[in-house]
Amino acid sequence: MNILDEINIRNARPSDHENVVSVMPDWWGGRDLSSSVLKVFFIHFNKTTYVAEIKDDLVGFLVGFLSQSEENAGYIHFAGVHPHYREAGIGRLLFQRFYGVCKSNRRSIVRSCTSPINKLSINFHQRMGFIIEPGDGIVDGVPVTLNYLRKNDPKVLFRKELDR
Amino acid sequence: MNILDEINIRNARPSDHENVVSVMPDWWGGRDLSSSVLKVFFIHFNKTTYVAEIKDDLVGFLVGFLSQSEENAGYIHFAGVHPHYREAGIGRLLFQRFYGVCKSNRRSIVRSCTSPINKLSINFHQRMGFIIEPGDGIVDGVPVTLNYLRKNDPKVLFRKELDR
Repeated sequence: MNILDEINIRNARPSDHENVVSVMPDWWGGRDLSSSVLKVFFIHFNKTTYVAEIKDDLVGFLVGFLSQSEENAGYIHFAGVHPHYREAGIGRLLFQRFYGVCKSNRRSIVRSCTSPINKLSINFHQRMGFIIEPGDGIVDGVPVTLNYLRKNDPKVLFRKELDR
Repeated sequence: MNILDEINIRNARPSDHENVVSVMPDWWGGRDLSSSVLKVFFIHFNKTTYVAEIKDDLVGFLVGFLSQSEENAGYIHFAGVHPHYREAGIGRLLFQRFYGVCKSNRRSIVRSCTSPINKLSINFHQRMGFIIEPGDGIVDGVPVTLNYLRKNDPKVLFRKELDR
């Protein structure tokens, strides 16, 4: 049985927040980025925030929203997949679910960003058809925006045009 | 000359983020809540995020968004006024600016929350016509929701119905 047949993706509930932030350090190789995953996203952006489960176990999540500054864009704030379940297509399913709600809200651009250290994430975005935006610096050969989410914390910015 | 005549309120820009988070510990009496004021709000929610300035000095800010879970509601995520400029009406101006964009987006409810320790904020919301939502606990005689934004961090939840 294909693992994807066992995956259930559903809209997140506020009560999912605690579990999501608890797994993040493990899923991000020890980096604790959970302070950026505010519960307010699980409360007020639950139409674009998902969890992926196998039975009742969390195996992936995506926190996104429709930009309110850029009317044509959706933004993926954070997404992750359990290390034991990578390369199985769970990330792709989560992103595709987000694309669907973007399209149904007449958004044709999806944006996202990651740290230049996160090669897995860069590779994933490229496989998913994201292009890297030109930035104002280069780290490890990759264009970055030096002060995107905070000062001196370069980020690789991604953009994807959705098919009609 | 009334101080309000000198105030300029404008939509925030991403470049305002650094300044806003730098003043927060001072404006919140030493509590550093700045990790919740993500720059992503200044990037993707700048139509509902404002700074108040006197000449070029920051004297207030409001970070808000239109809820994407509750189609009739706007949410004030964080707002603050410089301690030297309190009781002058700057907070009222910021809130009224937010009410305006809520109304023009057919939102009739404004939500907000604060810690029960923050009596200034509770008083301000009550003067502004917010009611306190029933919760699942009481702290200092005030109804709170015990696990609203994180576990064991009770919040006072506010709601205001906007005039048509």
